[in-house]
Amino acid sequence: MRPQVLIIGCGFGGLEAARAFSGSGAAEVDITVVDKTNHHLFQPLLYQVATAGLSAPSIAAPIRHLFRGQRNVTTLLGEVAGIDANAKTATLKDGAVLRWDHLIVAAGATHSYFGRDDWAQHAPGLKTLEDAFEIRRRVLLAFEAAEREDDPARRAALMQFVVVGAGPTGVELAGTFAEIARHTLSGEFRRIDPRQAKVLLVEGGPRVLAAMPEALSERAREQLVALGVEVKLNARVTGIDDQGLDLTTAGGPERLHSRCVVWAAGVAASPLGRVLAEATGCALDRAGRVVVEPDLSLKGFPHIQVIGDLAAAQSHVAGREPKPVPGVSPGAKQMGRCAAANIKRRLRGEAIQAFRYSDYGNLATIGRNSAVVDLGTPAGPLRFSGYFAWLFWLFAHVYFLIGYRNRFVVLLDWAWAYWTYDRGARVVANAGLSEASPARDVKA
Amino acid sequence: MRPQVLIIGCGFGGLEAARAFSGSGAAEVDITVVDKTNHHLFQPLLYQVATAGLSAPSIAAPIRHLFRGQRNVTTLLGEVAGIDANAKTATLKDGAVLRWDHLIVAAGATHSYFGRDDWAQHAPGLKTLEDAFEIRRRVLLAFEAAEREDDPARRAALMQFVVVGAGPTGVELAGTFAEIARHTLSGEFRRIDPRQAKVLLVEGGPRVLAAMPEALSERAREQLVALGVEVKLNARVTGIDDQGLDLTTAGGPERLHSRCVVWAAGVAASPLGRVLAEATGCALDRAGRVVVEPDLSLKGFPHIQVIGDLAAAQSHVAGREPKPVPGVSPGAKQMGRCAAANIKRRLRGEAIQAFRYSDYGNLATIGRNSAVVDLGTPAGPLRFSGYFAWLFWLFAHVYFLIGYRNRFVVLLDWAWAYWTYDRGARVVANAGLSEASPARDVKA
Repeated sequence: MRPQVLIIGCGFGGLEAARAFSGSGAAEVDITVVDKTNHHLFQPLLYQVATAGLSAPSIAAPIRHLFRGQRNVTTLLGEVAGIDANAKTATLKDGAVLRWDHLIVAAGATHSYFGRDDWAQHAPGLKTLEDAFEIRRRVLLAFEAAEREDDPARRAALMQFVVVGAGPTGVELAGTFAEIARHTLSGEFRRIDPRQAKVLLVEGGPRVLAAMPEALSERAREQLVALGVEVKLNARVTGIDDQGLDLTTAGGPERLHSRCVVWAAGVAASPLGRVLAEATGCALDRAGRVVVEPDLSLKGFPHIQVIGDLAAAQSHVAGREPKPVPGVSPGAKQMGRCAAANIKRRLRGEAIQAFRYSDYGNLATIGRNSAVVDLGTPAGPLRFSGYFAWLFWLFAHVYFLIGYRNRFVVLLDWAWAYWTYDRGARVVANAGLSEASPARDVKA
Repeated sequence: MRPQVLIIGCGFGGLEAARAFSGSGAAEVDITVVDKTNHHLFQPLLYQVATAGLSAPSIAAPIRHLFRGQRNVTTLLGEVAGIDANAKTATLKDGAVLRWDHLIVAAGATHSYFGRDDWAQHAPGLKTLEDAFEIRRRVLLAFEAAEREDDPARRAALMQFVVVGAGPTGVELAGTFAEIARHTLSGEFRRIDPRQAKVLLVEGGPRVLAAMPEALSERAREQLVALGVEVKLNARVTGIDDQGLDLTTAGGPERLHSRCVVWAAGVAASPLGRVLAEATGCALDRAGRVVVEPDLSLKGFPHIQVIGDLAAAQSHVAGREPKPVPGVSPGAKQMGRCAAANIKRRLRGEAIQAFRYSDYGNLATIGRNSAVVDLGTPAGPLRFSGYFAWLFWLFAHVYFLIGYRNRFVVLLDWAWAYWTYDRGARVVANAGLSEASPARDVKA
């Protein structure tokens, strides 16, 4: 009986961990990958699905297709509900029990509304394909409703789009919303002028892209403004309802009327963190992430490792203070490789190693021709912004996309969108016309 | 004040009617196009979305984008709930009222379960993008569930796919399901062998593709069998539930166990037919289609025309018996052009003309390398099947697709699928894991 490795979640971390068992020495273990969805999602481009630039299949690959050639991997569609750390089992939501000798938990993160879960219905977040479709639906249908609306105040609220949170996702969404309003939809409406739509980016902190050096944050803010986004810094959200949101700013309380609010402000670890804490007594940090040992395992449970956004991990370099690992895809991938390597070492009776994060830099796109790049090079930091940063961002993302076909299709879609300003995926499957609204008289 | 033309529905008929008012003389009327969705759907390829070969945006174009350059067209997203033929208004579901001087109703068709609407939940039909996503979801998740199922009988039911109705859609779906099982998924599962999946095509009549000449029907049946489809003719469905369906055949009653049944058997006209009947007293045929005058107008209401699948129309050629117009896209397009031309004639005070259908033939695809073609030529009928028929079908469909980008993307997707047997859109956004099923013990 070969050792059984169970990997929960097939994002960047889980996928990389499973792949690390391929090739020579692959026959040593049996791997089961269990995920709630049937696809691995290339999350850095999810905002393009939400803004109708790409279709879902371009950035999502069926998990079992990715492991087609790796015979030691079994893929299961299922949601883990319970973990028994002593019996070494995981129980799925439907009651099925999976046994493991080594467990890698890579269940990722979800949105956090800071305890205000009632805001979720008014301000969807962006983590899954379903989220992306919902945001696409709300944005496109807001313009449709505005075209049919006669009341100027209601029309203005329909044409005001608010993104909460100026991290990478919030910046990408706000920049792209502005491009849609100014360019993509221009000329397609007869009663409204989409160019008069307002896009607001609301951030509680003092600058956008807080993970970036201050100078690049300021470049990003300038580029957002140039694209037509109004950036509100130091503005805290105090309430969200179906008509808009309430803010507290330096100037006092403020009310924004909007029918389309998107939440990009808070990230919380997967609920599986709490399941693990109950099973092992491990500590969770404020965001619900699992505090792991230097080798990514749990204290007292060396056979359980937690990686990716679910892990509060530190990077260990001999002779230096440990540093927290940022919640980015290279971090998750590197943790995946480390977790797999430690299982192999353990099986060979070798000493396990602490996780060390290699930081290749940070990049974020803002919109058409706009991005900021912060790279670490042996000669010191290399920082640039604008058109070349955008090209760099674009090719970096296409390069890391899963599958040759997807890379080609995404490049094609982007080239088309760039030259025509058209966005190919402006399709809403469910227009939700069942809701009734007050009677109005429209001249046909 | 220019005459107001209201077009309800933007399928092949409505789109063609609105386009007929472009170009010279375009300034004569104002046109409003109202549709329940935001996109024009290229329905002949919808089965490719259902079978994960194409992504939705490849075959759906935003309606207002199509009319971007036609300044006399206003596009509205809305569902018509009532029509007043004397006041010349249409009322939308939300109460908005649209006034018209000329009305073209092109609301199309939906599924008919022959009075057994309770079958709909167990056997979805294929008319909209949402339908296509639902079928894709059921087919792919059935294989996923089979991989996790230990009970042989339940596993066999999960791997048995039944298509009811052997018209063009049923034949396309059955042929493609067989290709998915035999080729696309082969090698991706570890516990089941997808090639052992069974695909059944159940037809109440004595042959498949009943609209085709008998010899081509037989060719199509042979090609289906070669692809691995079991064709059951003269088999009437008497019941459908969540575990399978009941049939009456020449050999007596029969029970098929299946967790994935697709309905391609019955078509019913849009409910707007009944709305029109109440408003004008017009007659409906057995399928709920509106019986129209030779010029496609309603008796006593020359300003209302009904076209496309909603119309029970006849083709009129001087000196010959009128012939019913088949429910195909060329018919809808020709009716759209005829309706627009008659409005223009009426505005110029000219005599209106009867509708004449030009039949260019009939083609249907069955699966990889398989199709049947029946063309009318001046030298008599030209009939062929197999590989060249399939190439002919393919290029004919790509040619009629809306938009250069879509044509290119679809050709690319097909070339990829042809050479690799892969299907690029095997993505399920919502795996619906909330349903609980009996506890089972699965070895990881």
